[in-house]
Amino acid sequence: MIIIINKESITDNEIEQVTLRLKNLGFNSHVSNGQSRIVIGAIGENKKDAQKALEALPYVEKIVPISKPFKLVSREFKSHDTKVAIEDLTIGENTFSIMAGPCAVENKNSLKEVAKGIKQAGGKILRGGVFKPRTSPYSFQGLGEEGLKILYEAAKENELKIVTEVMDPRQIDLVSKYANILQIGARNMQNYELLKEVGNSNKPVVLKRGMSSTVEEWLMAAEYILVRDNYQVILCERGIRTFETSTRNTLDLAAVSLVKELTHLPVIVDPSHGTGKWKLVSPMSKAALAAGADGVMVEVHQSPEEACSDGLQSLTIENFTKLTQNLQALAPHFNKRMVTN
Amino acid sequence: MIIIINKESITDNEIEQVTLRLKNLGFNSHVSNGQSRIVIGAIGENKKDAQKALEALPYVEKIVPISKPFKLVSREFKSHDTKVAIEDLTIGENTFSIMAGPCAVENKNSLKEVAKGIKQAGGKILRGGVFKPRTSPYSFQGLGEEGLKILYEAAKENELKIVTEVMDPRQIDLVSKYANILQIGARNMQNYELLKEVGNSNKPVVLKRGMSSTVEEWLMAAEYILVRDNYQVILCERGIRTFETSTRNTLDLAAVSLVKELTHLPVIVDPSHGTGKWKLVSPMSKAALAAGADGVMVEVHQSPEEACSDGLQSLTIENFTKLTQNLQALAPHFNKRMVTN
Amino acid sequence: MIIIINKESITDNEIEQVTLRLKNLGFNSHVSNGQSRIVIGAIGENKKDAQKALEALPYVEKIVPISKPFKLVSREFKSHDTKVAIEDLTIGENTFSIMAGPCAVENKNSLKEVAKGIKQAGGKILRGGVFKPRTSPYSFQGLGEEGLKILYEAAKENELKIVTEVMDPRQIDLVSKYANILQIGARNMQNYELLKEVGNSNKPVVLKRGMSSTVEEWLMAAEYILVRDNYQVILCERGIRTFETSTRNTLDLAAVSLVKELTHLPVIVDPSHGTGKWKLVSPMSKAALAAGADGVMVEVHQSPEEACSDGLQSLTIENFTKLTQNLQALAPHFNKRMVTN
Amino acid sequence: MIIIINKESITDNEIEQVTLRLKNLGFNSHVSNGQSRIVIGAIGENKKDAQKALEALPYVEKIVPISKPFKLVSREFKSHDTKVAIEDLTIGENTFSIMAGPCAVENKNSLKEVAKGIKQAGGKILRGGVFKPRTSPYSFQGLGEEGLKILYEAAKENELKIVTEVMDPRQIDLVSKYANILQIGARNMQNYELLKEVGNSNKPVVLKRGMSSTVEEWLMAAEYILVRDNYQVILCERGIRTFETSTRNTLDLAAVSLVKELTHLPVIVDPSHGTGKWKLVSPMSKAALAAGADGVMVEVHQSPEEACSDGLQSLTIENFTKLTQNLQALAPHFNKRMVTN
Repeated sequence: MIIIINKESITDNEIEQVTLRLKNLGFNSHVSNGQSRIVIGAIGENKKDAQKALEALPYVEKIVPISKPFKLVSREFKSHDTKVAIEDLTIGENTFSIMAGPCAVENKNSLKEVAKGIKQAGGKILRGGVFKPRTSPYSFQGLGEEGLKILYEAAKENELKIVTEVMDPRQIDLVSKYANILQIGARNMQNYELLKEVGNSNKPVVLKRGMSSTVEEWLMAAEYILVRDNYQVILCERGIRTFETSTRNTLDLAAVSLVKELTHLPVIVDPSHGTGKWKLVSPMSKAALAAGADGVMVEVHQSPEEACSDGLQSLTIENFTKLTQNLQALAPHFNKRMVTN
Repeated sequence: MIIIINKESITDNEIEQVTLRLKNLGFNSHVSNGQSRIVIGAIGENKKDAQKALEALPYVEKIVPISKPFKLVSREFKSHDTKVAIEDLTIGENTFSIMAGPCAVENKNSLKEVAKGIKQAGGKILRGGVFKPRTSPYSFQGLGEEGLKILYEAAKENELKIVTEVMDPRQIDLVSKYANILQIGARNMQNYELLKEVGNSNKPVVLKRGMSSTVEEWLMAAEYILVRDNYQVILCERGIRTFETSTRNTLDLAAVSLVKELTHLPVIVDPSHGTGKWKLVSPMSKAALAAGADGVMVEVHQSPEEACSDGLQSLTIENFTKLTQNLQALAPHFNKRMVTN
Repeated sequence: MIIIINKESITDNEIEQVTLRLKNLGFNSHVSNGQSRIVIGAIGENKKDAQKALEALPYVEKIVPISKPFKLVSREFKSHDTKVAIEDLTIGENTFSIMAGPCAVENKNSLKEVAKGIKQAGGKILRGGVFKPRTSPYSFQGLGEEGLKILYEAAKENELKIVTEVMDPRQIDLVSKYANILQIGARNMQNYELLKEVGNSNKPVVLKRGMSSTVEEWLMAAEYILVRDNYQVILCERGIRTFETSTRNTLDLAAVSLVKELTHLPVIVDPSHGTGKWKLVSPMSKAALAAGADGVMVEVHQSPEEACSDGLQSLTIENFTKLTQNLQALAPHFNKRMVTN
Repeated sequence: MIIIINKESITDNEIEQVTLRLKNLGFNSHVSNGQSRIVIGAIGENKKDAQKALEALPYVEKIVPISKPFKLVSREFKSHDTKVAIEDLTIGENTFSIMAGPCAVENKNSLKEVAKGIKQAGGKILRGGVFKPRTSPYSFQGLGEEGLKILYEAAKENELKIVTEVMDPRQIDLVSKYANILQIGARNMQNYELLKEVGNSNKPVVLKRGMSSTVEEWLMAAEYILVRDNYQVILCERGIRTFETSTRNTLDLAAVSLVKELTHLPVIVDPSHGTGKWKLVSPMSKAALAAGADGVMVEVHQSPEEACSDGLQSLTIENFTKLTQNLQALAPHFNKRMVTN
């Protein structure tokens, strides 16, 4: 059971009284403090009694009995699709979005070249890592703030929005100054302190599925963000780790169709990390559209063979342009609309 | 290196001479005896010398140097798509095929009802198990020959072709009397004696991917069949076993796109076993088409809630009809054509 | 519920009456025909009524209500450890057995050398494949009957018992003439026709766990053999397939401890296939003993670097001798006794 | 190639010159700044030339060519076992250590009861979580600083050392005031910012293997800590995620034996999380000892059925005492010595 409380109309003392009352009714409860709302998750048996006892209280906005372990993200809580708005741009509902760019921001000139190509192909959102989670401490770790500035300049020149990864709660303020969307990478999907902090921010969040996370764990990670009152979450399937090594990961498109049933949040697919092979990016992007995804995130590089990381899975600007055209033609057959220029 | 030999023009003695000659050239070789051709797989260093030494021999049809561990199934061996012909029906190339029917043949009336529904929806191939590989010895094991007769009658009445599973080399002759296509199930993908025997038969074969088989192992299993001179093999992706339990298996659609690059054989997808949830069958069938598959195999039951096995993943006739219509409309956008009535 | 029936005292007609009676009591039942006993597995609600109705019948030996999906293999059915006897040799209970030998039988001289080494180290059981399940049709497929004869001669000279793999129901009679124990390999763990036939034989069976089989599926595969009245089954853990590639498979020793709780059958471990690295065979053999295993199956080769297959995971005779000594010293600390010369 | 530099004897300007020189020699290099040493990882071809050019420089302590992707953690870098010292206590080399306690610190009285039991059984190190990474935001998240104080008091009264988890770089200073060892949990194994910060601390670190991390990724994560000049790292195998659900995770003991060959760092095993079943904790602890582990971390609770989390995998104090006695008796047979009172 989820109890949504208007934060302005309740005192700390009253919150304590609510949880005490829940305890007396046999419920364990957990209070999550968002910006404008407080969410109390309560677990116990006599839901009807509890609902009756609480719904008359003036500060209680809504009480929703939910059977699933994830609550605010579920379709039981909210049946219609969530739209995430980034200024004039909409992600989710009946749109199909493309986020594109290099794995890592490497230097100003090459990023500008990619950004220009993306814009010309009709792209609206530029991706590029400046804080890179690398397996080896001896690998390129990203350009940090310098990279953010490059990203900002390249995006501004080409009227693109920016999505980029945060790896540490202490990076959120800095990254938020430049980016429109914060990305939580697969390795940090269960970095709960980081989830809480992006939940406290007012930025849209792309939440990648952990490489060995179940669908339920993924939705529970999203719940950590929503419970802090940030409902602008975009889920991103990027392949799971299995025994199969002929692809970098195993892209789980059935999970996309399943998650679209379970949650009202938009779901996108990253076929670049999902397969690790640029030749599979185009068929898997189309398959993602067919599976019901709300968009794709793809790696594009002006010269893939020279990329600092992940060159093998990057599209050239030319191939990206073709893919965008294909997707735009196909989208209406799946009740989606792709906004390009 | 693969040496293809015309069987009629060579004696056993001459074969021995060829392998001896290969040995002297530093090659390990393996002779596979097909119906009309003999294939010698030879592994060694000086391919050019060996090719020169052998290609002049009168009984040598063709010598193909192939770098991959799988040879006859590879695009290096044969670049254009293989078409599998079942009388007037074609599987592969630019067609999209649907194989449909219940998991198990249960009784005559219900199968006839399903078969009629499949025909009316435009289906051409009826599936249904009569020898069932069941986890428990206490579960329904299939109707055996009685089931074959029911299958035959229902198919004939509705002008459908038949695909059904064989689990034991000793069943092949019997099943071949009734079925148009022999199916090798996931659990038997590496049952090499069975593969050899279906290779010796002259029936088309659907070869399901093992639930923990890599793409390479799957293609090597197909190689066992082709090397016996049976080239009519249809690969079937049906989901792999991973940590994820929210779907029955993890449907690996990227493997489909990848395999279409590696082999000339047709590849179909089984979204029923691949997901275990009927609601996901339709989006995954469309995603399979988008991924480049040559068809789907789906479970259809006249009354899924009463099915002996796998009811949760079976479509009703009504939903199957809708799916067929959807796929027929979508196919041309993926350069495929679906033959219905 | 399991109903055990004395085969001699019942007619086919009476069996039909029993199943009819079960049907009327609301039970689905499945009859398995063993050599001297018939086992009826019955699934339904009113177990007490059914038990009362049936236990008075003269041919009914025993009725056991069992909650688990596996019945005859479970400790609920038989609480004390099963001993498998091979002439004078015992496997299971408080013994620790070692089965050793090359992956494949290659030729007489080298096998005799290995067999002699094994005997001198105190080994009692010789392993060696003559029918080999190989991923590639171009790899060495085993020596077949010739290999069986070599195996027999080498074993006889050194007073060893023989365990070797069968891959096809049609090989069972032949192999049974030479071998003391039939092995079902990991790839055939769910080859149910093969399981039924070794169930019909009167030979002890080593049943390897499938590379992606759950503990429950493994025990159900054993149930297929027991239900045919062959109770001499030895389970063998040989590693499962996971994402980890630094070892060939992931040896699941916790499954060994768990299975020892669930079943009365002996359980051994194959650390050679389980790890794919000979250096890990010794520590994993000791860990298997500590985990409660009843023995190990290890690959030994007189000259591992020249082996036809799996040389990297084979012990030299010298290292095998050391391992045997170590295990013999350690066994008593784990309430096990190792019979050597 | 690894270049170790004495930090005090070099200026920033000189470091730049070194990397420039490496660049001219064709090397990509990465500088990691530790407390007293600087480590430059350099990747390129002509190692001999580079070594000659650099080893004469006064501030260069050591140059080590290492073939593996992990450097400082490898046995190539340091062949003898690392001992981690916590005051009078040693972990690693020929010792076998036990870390024990509840999953989460719940309240003062129960923790004191457990701590007393652990001390009486001969335990030396108390574990207990105060910052808990929980799948659900509605689950108990740990007592935070209050828990640290309870942990400190219970440990002090019983002369135990403390190990507890940090989940966020911002918690390190606080936790370091109370704990002797910082634990990085499985979910944070690739939280690289956190790894860098515990690398900058002067506390010993237990680094749990990620639930889908390969052995190589695990060692690379440890490298992140060593490269910052913190060599006191204890690796902890806690089970990996596979398809098998009969145990909570699949405990990978072969990885323990393998890692002991690859690295000089101590390796311990967590059979509680590794299996999720308290009955398997004892056999798996013994198997860990047999596999070459340097210790175990086990969950102990005064009343497992009442635990806030993970009760099913917790030992009672009584069973823990038995296990300690068993391990103490067995340790010498594996060249280990267990220090108890």
